[in-house]
Amino acid sequence: MRRLSTQDQNFKQQFADLLAFETVNDPELLKTVDQIIADVRANGDTHVLALTQKFDRHPAQHFSDLELTQTQLKTAFDGLDDEVRQALEMAANRIRSFHEAQKQDGWTYVDALGNTLGQKITPLDRVGIYVPGGLASYPSSVLMNAVPAHVAGVQEIIMVVPAPNGELNPLVLAAAYLAGVHRVFTIGGAQAVAALAYGTETIPQVDKITGPGNRFVAAAKRAVFGQVGIDMIAGPSEILVYAEGKNNAKWLAMDVLSQAEHDTVAQAIFITPDEQLLNAVAEAIEEHLANLPKAEIARTSIANRGALVLVKDRDEAIALINQVAPEHLELSLDDAEQMSQEIRHAGAIFMGRYTPEAIGDYCAGPNHVLPTSGTARFSSPLGVYDFQKRTSLIMCSEQGVKPLAKTADILAQQENLDAHARSARYRYQ
Amino acid sequence: MRRLSTQDQNFKQQFADLLAFETVNDPELLKTVDQIIADVRANGDTHVLALTQKFDRHPAQHFSDLELTQTQLKTAFDGLDDEVRQALEMAANRIRSFHEAQKQDGWTYVDALGNTLGQKITPLDRVGIYVPGGLASYPSSVLMNAVPAHVAGVQEIIMVVPAPNGELNPLVLAAAYLAGVHRVFTIGGAQAVAALAYGTETIPQVDKITGPGNRFVAAAKRAVFGQVGIDMIAGPSEILVYAEGKNNAKWLAMDVLSQAEHDTVAQAIFITPDEQLLNAVAEAIEEHLANLPKAEIARTSIANRGALVLVKDRDEAIALINQVAPEHLELSLDDAEQMSQEIRHAGAIFMGRYTPEAIGDYCAGPNHVLPTSGTARFSSPLGVYDFQKRTSLIMCSEQGVKPLAKTADILAQQENLDAHARSARYRYQ
Repeated sequence: MRRLSTQDQNFKQQFADLLAFETVNDPELLKTVDQIIADVRANGDTHVLALTQKFDRHPAQHFSDLELTQTQLKTAFDGLDDEVRQALEMAANRIRSFHEAQKQDGWTYVDALGNTLGQKITPLDRVGIYVPGGLASYPSSVLMNAVPAHVAGVQEIIMVVPAPNGELNPLVLAAAYLAGVHRVFTIGGAQAVAALAYGTETIPQVDKITGPGNRFVAAAKRAVFGQVGIDMIAGPSEILVYAEGKNNAKWLAMDVLSQAEHDTVAQAIFITPDEQLLNAVAEAIEEHLANLPKAEIARTSIANRGALVLVKDRDEAIALINQVAPEHLELSLDDAEQMSQEIRHAGAIFMGRYTPEAIGDYCAGPNHVLPTSGTARFSSPLGVYDFQKRTSLIMCSEQGVKPLAKTADILAQQENLDAHARSARYRYQ
Repeated sequence: MRRLSTQDQNFKQQFADLLAFETVNDPELLKTVDQIIADVRANGDTHVLALTQKFDRHPAQHFSDLELTQTQLKTAFDGLDDEVRQALEMAANRIRSFHEAQKQDGWTYVDALGNTLGQKITPLDRVGIYVPGGLASYPSSVLMNAVPAHVAGVQEIIMVVPAPNGELNPLVLAAAYLAGVHRVFTIGGAQAVAALAYGTETIPQVDKITGPGNRFVAAAKRAVFGQVGIDMIAGPSEILVYAEGKNNAKWLAMDVLSQAEHDTVAQAIFITPDEQLLNAVAEAIEEHLANLPKAEIARTSIANRGALVLVKDRDEAIALINQVAPEHLELSLDDAEQMSQEIRHAGAIFMGRYTPEAIGDYCAGPNHVLPTSGTARFSSPLGVYDFQKRTSLIMCSEQGVKPLAKTADILAQQENLDAHARSARYRYQ
C-alpha cells in the first residue's frame, strides 16, 4: 500500500494524483443508451421484455412475468431466518427514526406590509428505485432508498431490480416488503431507467429515479435527468480513516478494508500523525488480507487507489480531509466531536473508536447513499428532502401589494419587460 | 389564441399536445460544447480569452481585461437613478428576508442505546453564478442567485456575465455590488461554465454553478454536472392563470402576457369555469397586444403554446394544474388560499387578485428561479438549500454500538461483504 508523508517534497502532486479519478464519457456507451431510451419510448413493454430476455437471459415469456406480487415479497420475508429478519427489522426501524427527524413542515409569515409569504412542502407522487441485481444485490440499498421515500409521504414506490437468469436474492424482496415498496419489476439496465422515466403500457411514469447501478444505468440516469429527477451519479466507494492516540490497529485496518473490498477502484485512505500506528495498520492490513474472501478486490483497490498518509499534526489532516471531501470519514480519536467541527466536506462522519463505517452501511440510521468523488463539496446524503419539493407561496393584500408593484414596475422597465411592468402597475394605480 | 374546453371530445389529447415540449439534444451542439470544455481545461485563460474575443467580439487584449473591479461595480451602483436604486435595494432586502427564513440548523439526538446521530449543515465554499448578457440581461437574476448564496454563508461568489462588444448593463453590475458578489468576469457561454467548473490560472474552480443561459450554457452545465453541482436546466418560462368570480379581465390578460413576452416558446395558459370571463380575457389580450413593445414575441408565444381553457368547475381546474405543474400559478379568486392546498405541483403560487406574477420576478421575496417544463413534479425553487449541504454524524458509545454492530455483522454476511462484517464484529465481541 502506497505510503505518503506531507514532508515529501512532491507531496501535493502525489496527493492530487491519488485523488484524480475521471469516469470516461464513452461515446459508444452514450449512443447505446440513447438508442435504448428511444426504443423503449417507441415500443414500451415489448422492447423492455426483449432486452430483459437478451441482456439478463430472463426466461419471461410475457411482460406480466416481470412483475412480482406482494405475496411473493411477503413469502420472501416470511422465509427469512429469525436472526436475519430481526436484523433487517432493526435496520429499517433505525433508518425510519433518523429520517423522521428530517421531515420538514411548510411555513408562512406576514410581512410588515400585510403580505403573506411562505413555502409549502409536498411529497413526490411516484418514485422509482433502482436496485442492482446479480453480484452487487444489496438489501440494505432497498431500505436506504425506500424508507426515506415512505417517510416523505410518497404515494407510490416502484422498484426495479434485474434478475439475471430469472434469479433473485430473496433478501432483496424481503427488504422491499419491509420497506413498503408498492410494485416491483424484475428489469434492469438503461431499459429499466427509460421505462421509469417515460412510462410504458404497464410501468407507470415516475417523477424521480434513485439508486445506484452500473455504467449503463448511470448514463441512462444522466440522459433522463430533466424528464425526471435523479438522486446523483454515484462513483466508487471511499473511506478516509483518521486516527490518533490509543487505537487498535487491527480495527482500523479492517475499517480501511471494508471499503476496499467493494470495488477495485474504491478508495481507502488512512491518515495519522503517528508513524508507529501507521506501521501497525500497514501490517494489520496485510494480515487481514491473508484470509479475506474478497482479498483480491481489496488488494487491487489499495494498490491502485489506497494510501497511508503520515501528517505532522491534526491541522494538516483536516486540510487534507477537506480537500478529499470523502464519502465516509472515520475520526478515531478521543475528541472526535471537536475535530468534526473543522470538517467542511464529508458525506458522513463516524466519530470515536466504536463507530465503524460498516454500521452506517446497514443500521446506524443515517442514509448510506452518500456523495462520492469529492461531490460532498456540494451535495448531501440521500434523505427525505430528495422525496419532497417546495412550492413558494405569495399572497398580497390590496394595500400591501402597492409598494411591491411599484418596485416591480420600475425594475421591469429597466429590463424592457413592458407587460411585466403594466401587470404590476394595474395593482397600484 | 387557442381555445379548449374540457367538454371537447378529444380534450385530453389536445391538452397533452399543448404541454408537449421537448428540447432536442442536438449532437452537434453537444460535440461543440464538449470540445470547448476540453480546450478550456487544456489551455485555461488563453482559450477563454480567445473564445470571448471570437464569440462576444470583446475588445479585451489580456485576460485581466475580463475581470471587473469592485470599484467598477460600486461606480455602477452609485450611478443609478434614485428611484431605480431604491427599487433594487427594496428587492434585495425582501429577497434576503425571505431566504433568511429558509436557513436551517444542524441537529443531533441521542438514541435509546446512547448513540449520537445527527446532521450538520455547511455552506458551499465557492459558487459561480451565470448571468446572461446582451438581450436577456436581468439584474433581478443577479439578486435571485447571489442573495441566497450569501444568506447560506458561501464565502466566495463568482459571477460571469458575457459582454457582447465589451458592453454591459450597468444595472447588472449595480445588482452584483448590492448582492455582495466577490468577483466578476465578463465571459459567457460554454467557456465560462468550463472555466468555473475546472478553474483556470485566474478563475478559481467553484463547487456549484447556478443561473440561466442559452442552449450552449445549458448543455455545458449538463456536461459538467458531477464535477460541480448545478441548479437546474431551465426551460422556457410558463404561467398558468386560474380565475373565477369577480375579476378584471384586463389585469388577467396582462398577467398572461407577462410571461408570453419572455420568449416565443414561453407558455401562457388561462383557465376558468366562466365563459364570459374567458371571452373578456381573450379580447383584452388582443387589446393589450396592439400596443405592447414585445407584441411580436408574445403573439408567437400564445399562438404556438398558449391556450384559453374552459373547465366545468374548480376540481377540473385543479386536476389540470397538477398535470401541468406550472412554473408560475396565479389563483385569482376569493378563497385562493384554500384552493392552493389542493395544488400538488407548482413552482410558485400567487394567490388572490392583488398578487401578479410580476412582483414575484422582482421583489416579493421568494426566488424567481423556479422549476419549468413540469419539473415542479420533483424539483423546487432555488433557495438557501442549494448553497448548503448536509453531512451525517454518527457517534456510538462503547456499549451502544454492540446491538448495531451485531446487526451490521449479520446483514454484511448476507451481502457477502466480509470485511464489513468483521469490522463491525470487532466492536461487539
